[in-house]
Amino acid sequence: MTRARSGARGLADGTAGPTPTVGVIGLGTMGLPMAKNVLAAGFPLVAHNRSRGPVDALVALGATAAASPDELAGLSDIVITVLPDSPDVEAVVRGGRGVAAGIRPGSMLIDMTTASPALARDIAEYFHDRDVAVLDAPVSGGETGAVSGELSIMVGGDEDAYQRALPVLAAMGKTIVLVGGAGAGQVTKAANQMVVAITIAGVSEALLMAMKAGVDPEKVRQALLGGFAQSRILDLHGGRILARDYQPGFRSALQRKDLRIAAETAKAVKSSAPTTELVLDLYGDLVARGMGELDHSALAAFLEEAS
Amino acid sequence: MTRARSGARGLADGTAGPTPTVGVIGLGTMGLPMAKNVLAAGFPLVAHNRSRGPVDALVALGATAAASPDELAGLSDIVITVLPDSPDVEAVVRGGRGVAAGIRPGSMLIDMTTASPALARDIAEYFHDRDVAVLDAPVSGGETGAVSGELSIMVGGDEDAYQRALPVLAAMGKTIVLVGGAGAGQVTKAANQMVVAITIAGVSEALLMAMKAGVDPEKVRQALLGGFAQSRILDLHGGRILARDYQPGFRSALQRKDLRIAAETAKAVKSSAPTTELVLDLYGDLVARGMGELDHSALAAFLEEAS
Repeated sequence: MTRARSGARGLADGTAGPTPTVGVIGLGTMGLPMAKNVLAAGFPLVAHNRSRGPVDALVALGATAAASPDELAGLSDIVITVLPDSPDVEAVVRGGRGVAAGIRPGSMLIDMTTASPALARDIAEYFHDRDVAVLDAPVSGGETGAVSGELSIMVGGDEDAYQRALPVLAAMGKTIVLVGGAGAGQVTKAANQMVVAITIAGVSEALLMAMKAGVDPEKVRQALLGGFAQSRILDLHGGRILARDYQPGFRSALQRKDLRIAAETAKAVKSSAPTTELVLDLYGDLVARGMGELDHSALAAFLEEAS
Repeated sequence: MTRARSGARGLADGTAGPTPTVGVIGLGTMGLPMAKNVLAAGFPLVAHNRSRGPVDALVALGATAAASPDELAGLSDIVITVLPDSPDVEAVVRGGRGVAAGIRPGSMLIDMTTASPALARDIAEYFHDRDVAVLDAPVSGGETGAVSGELSIMVGGDEDAYQRALPVLAAMGKTIVLVGGAGAGQVTKAANQMVVAITIAGVSEALLMAMKAGVDPEKVRQALLGGFAQSRILDLHGGRILARDYQPGFRSALQRKDLRIAAETAKAVKSSAPTTELVLDLYGDLVARGMGELDHSALAAFLEEAS
């Protein structure tokens, strides 16, 4: 506690104070390895999760358990949330016993959930008068990147807060970019998910057509990788599609959720996004067919069944 | 004429005979620089085009003019067609005074037009009994690649014919792949055009959303290039979209034509291609709006107007 408080003072002063205590809420596939990397980088860690298992795992490594988000916030200089979706963020931050009930002036909230840009801006506004800095900092790179500490982190918020957060973010990510003000990280992630899902749709339809036309799809993939059709998706997901290996990776149900955020964001800012809407529908149908736990490249398998 | 005939004999024997005479029909944006590279590589060249200008340009460089496709075929060991669309290929090959009327046994026809796989298979079948080898060999790489001789060439046909054609193809292209039997080159090109157009749609919708949401789209582009959303389209066309520089490049009207071939091919082999169909419709609307002469990255401008 003493250490955490003096850490908070150092941060609030803008001086190079003691190492801040970091609280992490949400210890799932992404949050647990991210928290481990924060701990391994030397930051005192406080952990909270709905189920107790991953908290115990972190306590065994030297972390402190917190019984609720508000207790965690009271013990932390930097509170990080890594949750499934926007409503979870709303509940954990502003719900009963939420972060808002315990967070201290001069501290910081970093939401690393892939959530809606509108919510990110709303939360930043909400905490502005309470002297709590807020960053939205969704990630890409999947479980592999979370474990290796090589995530891409897309940050929205103030430059000052970003600089204060950077040492902690650097424990989790390799490419860390401040894209703009509040919500800009989430807009960037939404854009990322649009491009990823739509590219998967293109690669799926192309390889499926080649197969059905009796042309070796691996040769097609190789030929296309040499030209304008080149993409990381054609390389990696194209390879999975040809191997019919749909173990995630990134689950289709989450891809659908992220596309929903993207489509809603486009609509909110009156930006035409017909392809996004179509591919969102395709992933909706795929999930309805019981394929939501498969990797997002399983769109190819879904289209094959639909043919 | 003597030289051409002995060249044909050498090819027909499968021995390393004299240099074959190459005839090129269709001297447009792509065909003219391709023909120049064939000539520069040391192949005797016969040229035919509907308008006389580009023929004269080649004659000035040492080529022979032919007044019609059948005359050209009679003078050539390898006949190359580089035409706008499938109906043009049909007319030039099997129409009045067409290639079929003049082509000699033991020679070869290489169609480098982006045309339908069904037509490619039909033409290969048509010439099979006449001892004329046929390759479908559409290209990608655009005018730049045609001028520099660095096109990607996707070839369908027999291995023997491919090996005979390789020295001539190598004068025009850098990456040359025999993908499969008759029509496989066109199937590969159709797959390429699907992926290219759909990726442009994804990049356009994502960058447009970022802009409208008040986030610097160049920062978004940079952030996305570091992750799974990376593609050559995001890099090159994304750059054009942000610069609003829609000088072709590759014209939207041609992108639409190629997508039509892709959608028809998918339909013919009963392969589900909903995203291809949607993006085909978008390019159709774009062309209807008078934007067909702009680069295919102008889909972003079309979507912006439609927002």
